[in-house]
This record gives sequence, C-alpha cells and structure tokens, in this order.
Amino acid sequence: MPKEPIRPNIGNIQPYVPGKPIEEVERELRISNVIKLASNENPLGPSPKSIEAINKYIKDVSLYPDQACYELSGMLAEKFELSPDNIVIGNGSDEIMMLIALAYVSAQDEVVISLNTFSTYETVSKLMEASIVRVNLKNYRYDLEAMAKVCGPKTKLVFVCNPNNPTGIMNTRKEMDELVSKVPPNAILVIDEAYSEYVEAKDYPDSLEYIRAKKNVVILRTFSKIYGLAGLRVGYGIAKPDIIKYLRLVRLPFSVNRMGQIAALAALTDTHFVEASRKNNSEGKTYLYAELDKLGVSYLKTEANFIFINLNEDADMVFMQLMRRGIIVRPLSSFGMPGSIRVTIGTQDQNKKFIKALSEVIKR
Amino acid sequence: MPKEPIRPNIGNIQPYVPGKPIEEVERELRISNVIKLASNENPLGPSPKSIEAINKYIKDVSLYPDQACYELSGMLAEKFELSPDNIVIGNGSDEIMMLIALAYVSAQDEVVISLNTFSTYETVSKLMEASIVRVNLKNYRYDLEAMAKVCGPKTKLVFVCNPNNPTGIMNTRKEMDELVSKVPPNAILVIDEAYSEYVEAKDYPDSLEYIRAKKNVVILRTFSKIYGLAGLRVGYGIAKPDIIKYLRLVRLPFSVNRMGQIAALAALTDTHFVEASRKNNSEGKTYLYAELDKLGVSYLKTEANFIFINLNEDADMVFMQLMRRGIIVRPLSSFGMPGSIRVTIGTQDQNKKFIKALSEVIKR
Repeated sequence: MPKEPIRPNIGNIQPYVPGKPIEEVERELRISNVIKLASNENPLGPSPKSIEAINKYIKDVSLYPDQACYELSGMLAEKFELSPDNIVIGNGSDEIMMLIALAYVSAQDEVVISLNTFSTYETVSKLMEASIVRVNLKNYRYDLEAMAKVCGPKTKLVFVCNPNNPTGIMNTRKEMDELVSKVPPNAILVIDEAYSEYVEAKDYPDSLEYIRAKKNVVILRTFSKIYGLAGLRVGYGIAKPDIIKYLRLVRLPFSVNRMGQIAALAALTDTHFVEASRKNNSEGKTYLYAELDKLGVSYLKTEANFIFINLNEDADMVFMQLMRRGIIVRPLSSFGMPGSIRVTIGTQDQNKKFIKALSEVIKR
Repeated sequence: MPKEPIRPNIGNIQPYVPGKPIEEVERELRISNVIKLASNENPLGPSPKSIEAINKYIKDVSLYPDQACYELSGMLAEKFELSPDNIVIGNGSDEIMMLIALAYVSAQDEVVISLNTFSTYETVSKLMEASIVRVNLKNYRYDLEAMAKVCGPKTKLVFVCNPNNPTGIMNTRKEMDELVSKVPPNAILVIDEAYSEYVEAKDYPDSLEYIRAKKNVVILRTFSKIYGLAGLRVGYGIAKPDIIKYLRLVRLPFSVNRMGQIAALAALTDTHFVEASRKNNSEGKTYLYAELDKLGVSYLKTEANFIFINLNEDADMVFMQLMRRGIIVRPLSSFGMPGSIRVTIGTQDQNKKFIKALSEVIKR
C-alpha cells in the first residue's frame, strides 16, 4: 500500500507572490533605472550606521552567527524595558510566524485570520494543518469584533496585522484591548506590527502593555521597514518568557545571520535615521494624497509606509503600464483585491515620478 | 477541558549545543585573541571575492532578496550540469533539512538516523512528530548496511552525513550505491555532504549520479565550510524537480538573505580560494597527525576539515583547560560521545598553538 509521499496539506499551500524584483523587470523589459515601490522597503536605504557596522565586521562572515542573538535581544529588551527572555529574534518576522505555528498549531486547531491581509499567516497555519477561520475586513479595516466572535474552544491562534498590509488602516487601542480580553485562554493573539514605527494616529495600541500583563500575546516587529534592512532578514517577537522559550526551542540554530545581527544593532542606535525615515514618509504621504486627489483617484489614508489605491477594473493595466515606465507597484490580486494596487511611499523624487507615470497611464 | 498549549512533541526537542562563540569566551573569561576551532569554519576567512561583492552591493541591504534565488540556482545548476529546477537554496542547509521534514514527514512516519552525528536531522524529524529509528556507528563510521536493514514501509527519510560530523569518516561509493538501491520506494535518502569539498579519498560517492538517475535522493551542500560563509547562512539541496518543487513550496519567502546570495555567487567563482582552503586543510591534517602521534593522543584520520580526538575521561577537563588558554574546541557530549573532542583544522599558526596548548594540558 503506497503512502502519499508529501504531507496531505502541502498541496493547499499557495506560493507567495512577491513584489517584482528590480533585476527581473530590468532583465525582462530591457530597461534601466527601475524604481521599486512594491515591497514597502525604506526608500532612504539602510542606515549609514548599519553600513559602517557591516564594513567593520565584514571579515567575520566566515564565522557562524551568535545563535542566541545575545546582544540584539539585550538591546531590544533595554529599549522596551523588558527582559531578554521576552524577546526572540528571527530570520525576518516571517520566521517567527512559522515558529509560533510549529510550537503551537496542530491539525485539530483553528486559526482565525482576516481576508485581504499578509498571506504568510495562512501559509504557516496550513503548513501545520490547522483549519482556517476567515473573517472579512469591514470598510478595509480589521474587524476585531467579528474575529473575537468566531473564536471558540478550538482556536489556537488569532493573527492581526496592525496597521494592516495592504490597506494601511489601523485598529485602535480600545478595539485591541477588547480583543485581548475576549481571546480564549488557550489561544495566542499574534499582533504583527511591522509598520508600527510609521503610525501617526494617537490611539494606536501600546501593545507592550499586554506583554507586561502576561497576556497570551506575541508582538511581531521587523528591521525590514523603517530600519531599512529587508535584505538582511531580521525580525523579532515580543512575548512572555513562557511563550518565548518554546519559540526559541523550535528555531533552528543560526537562523539569524551574522551581518543581520550586526546591522540591526547599529540601526537601533541610529535614531536620527529613524526620524528622517518617519519624516520622509509623512511628507510623502501628504504629497501623494494631494496629487491623487487632483487625479481623482480613490485611495485610503494610511498609517504605514504605503498607500492603497482603488482602480477597479483598470488595476492590472495600470500595474503593467507603470512597469513599462520603470515603476514597479504591487497589484493586489494575490491579496484577494484584484481591483487595487499598493504603492510604497518613496523619496520625494520617486513619488513625483510615480505620480507623473500614473497620470500618463490613467489619462490614456 | 483545557488543551495542551504547545504541541505534544515539542517537549522532546533537545536545544542545539553550538560551539562556544569567541565573544562569549572573551566576555566570560576576560581574555582576548581567542582562537575558535569548534565549528569547522574556514580558517582562511571568507573569499576575497565575497568581500568585494558585499562591498559593492552593501547599499542594497534595504531591498528584499530575490526570493527565487535566480542567479545562485542558475550558477549552481551550471556547475553541476543540472537544471535550476534541481536546486533549492536555503538559509543554511539546516533550513533545507527542515523543509524536507515539513514537506514529507508526518506523525505516522519513521526516520532512520545514525547515533553520534549532526543533531539537526533528529530535531527536524521530531518537530514533525516522526518516530526516530536509531542505528549505531560501526567503528566510528556510518553503518549503511544496518540503516538499510531497519528501513520498512513506514520509513519516510534516511539521513546520512558523508563524511560524518563529528568523526570525519566517510562511506564509499560502493556502500552508498548499495544503500540507494535498498531504500524503500516511498522514502527519501538525504545525503548531507557539508564537508564533501575536503574529501581526498578516491572512492567517495559521486552522488550527483543519483540525481541524474532520478532517485529519491536529496544532496545537501553548504557555503558555510570551504566557501567561508558560515555567518551568512547559505546552503542548498540538489534533487529531482519533483522533490525540489515541494521544498520550494514550503520555504517561506526571502529566507535566504541578499548578502548571502551575493557572497555565495562570488565565492563560487573563486576557485583559487577553494584550492587554497583545500591545500591548507590537507597540510594541516598532515601536521596535526604527526604532532598528535608524538603526544600519543588517539584520533581518527579525517576526510573533512576537523579531527576527532579520543580522550576518554579527560575530555571535559581538556576542553576547559584549552579554553582557559584561549582555544575553543568542541566537546562531544552533545553528540553522545562524552570522551572525545572535535578540533577544526586551522591555519598553520592556529594548529601550532592548539598543539602547544594541548601538550601543556595533557602533561599536567
């Protein structure tokens, strides 16, 4: 009796659809100077302090990284006034999502996930054979009330992306407090705050309070966005030590590379760079809102470093036409929103080029 | 009825015991110029071409890596005269081990593993709840005949480390051919060849033949050893496309960082560096054999870049005393061999310092 060679749920995994890499577009379309506004990277590049640190330690790339991420956990603990035992570092926060699923999720469990959000929550849950319970967005926002309502005795994880990728809309402290109080005692609430450093709204949740109160909450943060280190893959999880110890246990040794650890440490000290990145984003947002209004294009106000633009049936055409003009944006069909695109807020120069290209494309 | 929050098998996972990092020893013992011969890193450092490439592309660390690892898979395919569809790149070959387990291993499966070998084979199998079937080494060598004998209808994976870490002893082509022919049709044979580039014996298996013959074999290789890039975490798997496609499907996006891909590409072109590394290893081996013979210390002849030394009840003491003298070796209790240490073959200068320290320690 021959067995199925692969695990039965593997066939249901959807491959991740990344933003088109610059190299690929330049190769395929034979154009150069392509601008990528597709993956919410930091348009100011990496922090100069990260570059300096990489340069200083470049010869050490032949040595294994510190598997405990001793210094980086320590510095993050200090920043948040927590213990290093509250922190787990990962190969991007993606890896932490996988570690949570690996440590906690089995075939009999349910995982509560919103539609129209970052797809890796669903991927890691399916890899561990969970049943996915899907909840709709409500006016492009996470519907935390509906998520609380579908929680039950089988719920193991609840994923919330705040602010949400790709809509840029956040949930308030009041809404989040409410959800935290309603998640069942055996479930873990995972709050992905990849874009938290860009939030300008005053009523954004202070999720560290949930950690201090020893709630079953894991906060995910990343060095890929405001810290400008997407290429080096460093993310982290914050939770109570009872959770962190298992995430560390299921993490393979050395998953966080040496240059990533070194560059992240340096980036944390560069408050000037973080401030400049925030300012660039805030100014870019204002500029883009005004220009999109002039063009009569429908968009959502964002708390992140990207803008969600509604184009209805024209979205794919606009994406293609922008690409031919050397600008890569993100078409949102893989997010279940085929009528929309997501555009990273770039430098002022990039924003202008994007608006110029967009105006040409939609006027045709 | 409260559920167990963590998955039941997680409690059985043994944390990985890494070689002591230099920073840690220098911090704890307040000494400097510590030499690490504990993790089989390349004592010549990274290839100069890797350093050059990192320098050239350093500002790109703010951009996500190419998730398809297009160029690196292409160059490896060319090197081995295979298709890019035969190659999967991972965050170290450790990640490929995890991907194999994630794609193929379930609770009802058995995984055949040798005792006294690299521990991650067992970790990834336990993470997927497999039953572990253990086979003894025979005179410090993988007993492939015994491994074939314990295979049965439930066998999903068979792991072979060739040459074996930590004994340095390899299995011959004849032995491996035999095992390949005996592994059951629904099982996959994983051959970890992390140290293959150091092998000098003539009868080492040409395992690529198994791939060309479309056997259920995955070969694991790494950039952490002879290519001098342990800190950047790049490994790869070679297999038929029917296997590779699933390993790619369960891999999270962007797990291989941008600097790792760039440095690995450059390292592949630096045949001079690889030759110099092989020569250094071969000469170091000859020197160390002669000196260990003079000291009357028992060791195994190696096909890798490390030497297994038998010290019986003195092993822990020797490890500690060497560390106080600024030399970190690997005590092998975590490999189930508490009477032995494993020493990386270093530069000639490092080898001399190791022998000097060892002779002081064992004479006391």
